[in-house]
Amino acid sequence: MKATIIMAAFGCALCWGQAADDCKPSVLNIPEAKYPCVYPDNRAMFRVIAPDAQKVSVRIGRGFDMTKGPDGIWTVSTTPLVVGFHYYGLNIDGATVADPSTMTFFGSGWPNSGIEIPEPDADASYYQPRDVPHGRVSEQWYLSRVTGRWRRCFVYTPPDYAANTRAKYPVLFLQHGWGEDETGWFTQGHVDYIMDNLIAAGKAKPMIIVMDNLNAVKPGESASLFAARGLVPAPAAAPPAPMAARGPGGPPAGGTPGAQGGRGAGRGGPGGGFNLSAFTDTMFADLIPMVEKNYRVAPGRENRAMAGLSMGGMQTFTTALNNLDKFAYLGGFSGSCGGRGGFDPKTSCGGAFANPADFNKKVKVLFLGIGSAEGQGTKDFSDSLTKAGIHNVYYESPGTAHEWLTWRRCLNDFAPRLFR
Amino acid sequence: MKATIIMAAFGCALCWGQAADDCKPSVLNIPEAKYPCVYPDNRAMFRVIAPDAQKVSVRIGRGFDMTKGPDGIWTVSTTPLVVGFHYYGLNIDGATVADPSTMTFFGSGWPNSGIEIPEPDADASYYQPRDVPHGRVSEQWYLSRVTGRWRRCFVYTPPDYAANTRAKYPVLFLQHGWGEDETGWFTQGHVDYIMDNLIAAGKAKPMIIVMDNLNAVKPGESASLFAARGLVPAPAAAPPAPMAARGPGGPPAGGTPGAQGGRGAGRGGPGGGFNLSAFTDTMFADLIPMVEKNYRVAPGRENRAMAGLSMGGMQTFTTALNNLDKFAYLGGFSGSCGGRGGFDPKTSCGGAFANPADFNKKVKVLFLGIGSAEGQGTKDFSDSLTKAGIHNVYYESPGTAHEWLTWRRCLNDFAPRLFR
Repeated sequence: MKATIIMAAFGCALCWGQAADDCKPSVLNIPEAKYPCVYPDNRAMFRVIAPDAQKVSVRIGRGFDMTKGPDGIWTVSTTPLVVGFHYYGLNIDGATVADPSTMTFFGSGWPNSGIEIPEPDADASYYQPRDVPHGRVSEQWYLSRVTGRWRRCFVYTPPDYAANTRAKYPVLFLQHGWGEDETGWFTQGHVDYIMDNLIAAGKAKPMIIVMDNLNAVKPGESASLFAARGLVPAPAAAPPAPMAARGPGGPPAGGTPGAQGGRGAGRGGPGGGFNLSAFTDTMFADLIPMVEKNYRVAPGRENRAMAGLSMGGMQTFTTALNNLDKFAYLGGFSGSCGGRGGFDPKTSCGGAFANPADFNKKVKVLFLGIGSAEGQGTKDFSDSLTKAGIHNVYYESPGTAHEWLTWRRCLNDFAPRLFR
Repeated sequence: MKATIIMAAFGCALCWGQAADDCKPSVLNIPEAKYPCVYPDNRAMFRVIAPDAQKVSVRIGRGFDMTKGPDGIWTVSTTPLVVGFHYYGLNIDGATVADPSTMTFFGSGWPNSGIEIPEPDADASYYQPRDVPHGRVSEQWYLSRVTGRWRRCFVYTPPDYAANTRAKYPVLFLQHGWGEDETGWFTQGHVDYIMDNLIAAGKAKPMIIVMDNLNAVKPGESASLFAARGLVPAPAAAPPAPMAARGPGGPPAGGTPGAQGGRGAGRGGPGGGFNLSAFTDTMFADLIPMVEKNYRVAPGRENRAMAGLSMGGMQTFTTALNNLDKFAYLGGFSGSCGGRGGFDPKTSCGGAFANPADFNKKVKVLFLGIGSAEGQGTKDFSDSLTKAGIHNVYYESPGTAHEWLTWRRCLNDFAPRLFR
């Protein structure tokens, strides 16, 4: 009894900075790092060594001020976080930086930190490695005539690709979101595990997936997707906080107005501040020919799909709706050409839906996915399309926001519908 | 005249924080970021936004204290830096973090910032993209029986691999250094460009290159390569400064004694504090069988090479010298089993060199590479081997230190010697 009282009295000093046994290191930490860690109720604990700092905070959706211990280590435990992948950053005396305790993930135009709040195993296993045949993600460089630069994409080839040396495969062109790059879908998105598992279960057809970088600038154009929003001014400003870590409808987490471009991109109409034409041109002039030259690709529009998340959904609809002779499948994950209300079947999205019979004949699947916490816009858009006679699939990810768990689930639902 | 005087008087205020026109952004910066930049004389200028910080410094080889401007932006211009790739980090009021203005590179066990001091074009072009046929670097996962975990390696396949569906290729197993991982050789090392250019020029035979992660831990073993050196204690300490950014023989840049393991690894004898056996076991039980199952690999020891940098050289010599029935080519880039003096042909390196005639018959190429600024140890080791009758190739990279430019050059010299 006495011991208990003493321990309680010294509790704060004794336990200070120690993780409770039930706080598990995030799977995205650097090797051996115990922090950040995640409690069973989805609160996260962060630790930063900054002995001389005056103020340190973690920004993950919202800000959490950290408290300095006598050892110069700052800590905080958050409120419960939504399951899935979150970008986050630290603020140390006014400097926005990544947490050195995690691997980094390219988002909002810079290498953010990341934390994964695990789903229950049964739900998450679709994007985790299983002992099934594995496909391969390859880095592929190509010289772009449109941009005049070497560009990099990543290409997923299905498990049987190497052995079936005569087989040809349909292709999905899969886009990242604003501020991200060609690494997003296989690093944050686990595209390879999702596809390996779907293919092994017989749920999806083996396909090639091409993940390129949306940021394309033609010679003489000064604006890239980043610069266009004023996010990387000269001289350099602090990077904005991650768009994906923001709650729906909440204020931008970052300090720059331009950061609002993140969500705006996913919901705006085509061309809403972004130059999407350079990527479209690059795709047709450089990317598709390179892929068809270097990979065993089945020919024709019925073997070609395009999808993307957030701004990548906007890019997809902009590119594909104007080129339906080249694509038979379209997916928008938290991003498309609609969702802002005011739908007019004759004029919205450039009039692409003006002739429902013709559209339904050409487009085998029109997929609209969204996280349930992202608001009503995508559901309204889907309903408007349905009302106008446009066949479409609406998928809602339960309990998730404008983040990668929504998009993993979207891909898991979308891919089985392709090339049937 | 008057205007000139006024401009000179206000010079500091006017030009403050502006890059001179001749300071070019490092190629490793995030998109659109103008800083850090590199002057023609190889000085670099760094900028950090940290308005409330008391003290900010850049650590790149040595520390450079930054100066705060009236706008809350800290800057410093360094002394001239050695050409090539350098890891670096910031210290903001005691916190060691990456610079948010650059992409990150895994070294010293965490995602460091990086800056590239360019070589003159003519010298550097061997590791830059040219309009030649390109090979492919693929991410490859496998389930390890030795470690009980999923592991990731990257595999370079040469340009003609996809088209020559019946050809079989020799394999080089290429290792990273201490604190790095399987991404090092294609991210910092540009292995793909180096090989593409060599193959296009007819200088190297087309080969497969496997880049795995040296960090392997068996179930029940608590020590990884990081933990073994006390570098990521619990609770987490500040990451050590990058080993590769240190000058030869200089003090470690980081704040932890363990950081010395970086160089020690490259020069120490086998087993000097590192557990290298788990990787050796993983390689033979899991990695090589996986590669031979999934890639078209030419059989036999004469089609198998192993090389590595720093600790990866140490791993190479430890693994291969004990298994010469499996390897005919060995390369140590700034790391091997020797170099600390006291060479005895009968006992050094486990007695591997005790029978020169037998060794020379088995080993087609024994390659020892080093940067000229790294000291005399490797040259002495090579001379000792030669004196003992062991055929070996000594390659010295002019003017470079224990950094990736040394290792790019080593690969460029080593690869053409393989599989002849």
